[in-house]
Amino acid sequence: MASRKSSKPRPRNALYAQSGGVTAVINASALGVIEACRRHRDRIGHLYAGRDGIVGALTEDLIDIGREDPAAIRALRHTPAGSFGSARYKLKDLERDRAKYERLIEVFRAHDIGYFFYNGGNDSMDTALKLSQLGEQLGHSVACIGIPKTVDNDLPLTDCCPGFGSVAKYVAVSTLEASLDVASMARTSTKVFILEVMGRHAGWIAAAGGLAGRKAGDPPHIILFPEIAFDRERFLARVRETVEQRGFCVIVASEGARDADGQFLSDMGTRDAFGHVQLGGVAPTLAAMIKDALGYKYHWALADYLQRSARHIASRVDVEQAYAVGRAAVELALAGKNAVMPVIVRKSSKPYRWKIGSVSIAAVANREKMVPRNYITADGFGITAACRRYLEPLIGGEDYPPFKSGIPVYAKLSNARVRRKLQAFVI
Amino acid sequence: MASRKSSKPRPRNALYAQSGGVTAVINASALGVIEACRRHRDRIGHLYAGRDGIVGALTEDLIDIGREDPAAIRALRHTPAGSFGSARYKLKDLERDRAKYERLIEVFRAHDIGYFFYNGGNDSMDTALKLSQLGEQLGHSVACIGIPKTVDNDLPLTDCCPGFGSVAKYVAVSTLEASLDVASMARTSTKVFILEVMGRHAGWIAAAGGLAGRKAGDPPHIILFPEIAFDRERFLARVRETVEQRGFCVIVASEGARDADGQFLSDMGTRDAFGHVQLGGVAPTLAAMIKDALGYKYHWALADYLQRSARHIASRVDVEQAYAVGRAAVELALAGKNAVMPVIVRKSSKPYRWKIGSVSIAAVANREKMVPRNYITADGFGITAACRRYLEPLIGGEDYPPFKSGIPVYAKLSNARVRRKLQAFVI
Repeated sequence: MASRKSSKPRPRNALYAQSGGVTAVINASALGVIEACRRHRDRIGHLYAGRDGIVGALTEDLIDIGREDPAAIRALRHTPAGSFGSARYKLKDLERDRAKYERLIEVFRAHDIGYFFYNGGNDSMDTALKLSQLGEQLGHSVACIGIPKTVDNDLPLTDCCPGFGSVAKYVAVSTLEASLDVASMARTSTKVFILEVMGRHAGWIAAAGGLAGRKAGDPPHIILFPEIAFDRERFLARVRETVEQRGFCVIVASEGARDADGQFLSDMGTRDAFGHVQLGGVAPTLAAMIKDALGYKYHWALADYLQRSARHIASRVDVEQAYAVGRAAVELALAGKNAVMPVIVRKSSKPYRWKIGSVSIAAVANREKMVPRNYITADGFGITAACRRYLEPLIGGEDYPPFKSGIPVYAKLSNARVRRKLQAFVI
Repeated sequence: MASRKSSKPRPRNALYAQSGGVTAVINASALGVIEACRRHRDRIGHLYAGRDGIVGALTEDLIDIGREDPAAIRALRHTPAGSFGSARYKLKDLERDRAKYERLIEVFRAHDIGYFFYNGGNDSMDTALKLSQLGEQLGHSVACIGIPKTVDNDLPLTDCCPGFGSVAKYVAVSTLEASLDVASMARTSTKVFILEVMGRHAGWIAAAGGLAGRKAGDPPHIILFPEIAFDRERFLARVRETVEQRGFCVIVASEGARDADGQFLSDMGTRDAFGHVQLGGVAPTLAAMIKDALGYKYHWALADYLQRSARHIASRVDVEQAYAVGRAAVELALAGKNAVMPVIVRKSSKPYRWKIGSVSIAAVANREKMVPRNYITADGFGITAACRRYLEPLIGGEDYPPFKSGIPVYAKLSNARVRRKLQAFVI
């Protein structure tokens, strides 16, 4: 009986892209986007993904998510890394990279992309902002919504970044476990253990190592933050004091640790017995320093990609937040917003309660949030109670993937390509 | 009504000691010993542990396990590393270290130790064997029972070694997760990823990385075993071929990888841009080699102690076997055996079924079990179906520890000291 409403907006298509270093939960954000789009088929037509992120968007290499096996899509919730492919590919400013921005708008127009969901960090938010502006200028309006993602936890205006909670949990658990190992053998074996973790600019991941200790004197005994200038003599004195008092010393070192001149420890190198420079990361540099000055037997570990892909020990809170920001991005777009990013808003720490808010992308782009000084102990080697109050809820809860034959069953997508409509574009 | 049987043997005390590198499940073996001793209070009086293993036994620094909080004891099942302390302390042969062996017998006599349970690898079995022989000679009979433990899986005559299954699971899971990470970013970022794992002599742990791949072409693309002579040209050709075909290459390298002359890659060093020797482990050596010859962007991880302490991702089969060999050691002692070691006997692979057997320690001591050639593919870079059939059951099942505030709750023992009866002994 009811007549069709002619005022109803015609459905437009959506494009989702993953950007930058991947995480254990970025695919949970993808799932949030996918499921929210499906709930609004009247407003959103096809949902595509850029193969390898923005690179796929530029080269019109788009994935038709709608053709994917529904079970594989559901498995995105517990699958680490970027199942549609991600990219380290930064677009410069509009003047220098105008051809690329215009190409993106051309691709958007060709595929009637009315919604662009960009899942990344600071750089990606900058790109999303420029695209929303340029689309407007070129007469192809597109809602560009950022979805926060970074293990570094350095985005401003959000309580935390999806991806961080899981790497934080991995680092806390690994520090605890390795510390038990070192403690049990220190009398006749290794005295100093160093775990090098990610975080070139901000020390959030290193700080998470501090969650391994529950009371004073518990390992880790030393945390090295990029935010605190490294002082060789103070560091060595603390290592010696710790080994003498406790029998061993556990150190969590950020890859971004640097001295007062801003020189990274990882770039310093050390000299071997022949006076040759030995290059390497922060951990081997510290280990050689300790060996030379104090003579202690050491071991060190470099978690590298293991830390950010460790979905098997993901934080449940992190998984839930990653999903929630993906879903919220779609809802913001449908509410008519543009150039915004959903964020996590903390309502209380004990018990931990949070909700989704949103901020303008312009306020996020290209800004970094460091570990504040009051989160670091006065001596610069540990985390304060305030830091613990902030961090602890973010690693809360477990969310194990299903296992088969001893290993997790992760999603394998077919990633079918959308038919091309444009000329090739060489990037 | 029944009269007391005067023929009943008087209870004697037992000593348990952990030895060598610790594992995620050695404490489960300790629990097996403890619970079995408790079931036989009529035969076994006090159960002590050597603080820091044999070092505690030598210095008469004994822990009274009976005074421990029962909840803490139960938690040993899910607590990694050596909760009583372990030691890298090898006793030499009877001639050279006779004073130490005699001291051990003196401590055993002073505390009426009639049962010695020594939880370790090849070296430890040798010590247990000598102690059983010397005790006999010196008129203090003691049942010396070995309990197998080593992440290296290199003990002969047992299907596997408790401790190995969990490190194998960790390495398989980590390889799988890091491979997804690399795969999702290879187009614009890292092309080659190397995970360096333990196993100085035998390549069992490296082999376990192969479980990450379910079908041909899946990562890891290259495994480097100590058993296969490293050939630089063949290796580089395979890396190049893999990157060209698949877009990226994942390598699992044993720390024991070596060339045809037996020189360890970790000792080779590489040269930096200034021609200076760069020392380091296998992974950085391989990375530098690849960078120089092929120019690919690389990343590498060194799991180090993280791999052997990762109780959070332990194999359930491994936990069960570790517990079972601990319990069986006590039962063997009570059955009048001496100088034996319980072993795992595989009854079938699919479905996996196993039972406990026992072997003479003399047959185990100082022997190593390498990965057999038919477990390694013809090209030397992968594992065969036979190897997979052997390995896969060993990583079967999960056995998560309890968590609180985001991290596992591991046992903390009070480790109360037994009153000393002897003069001090300096080691």
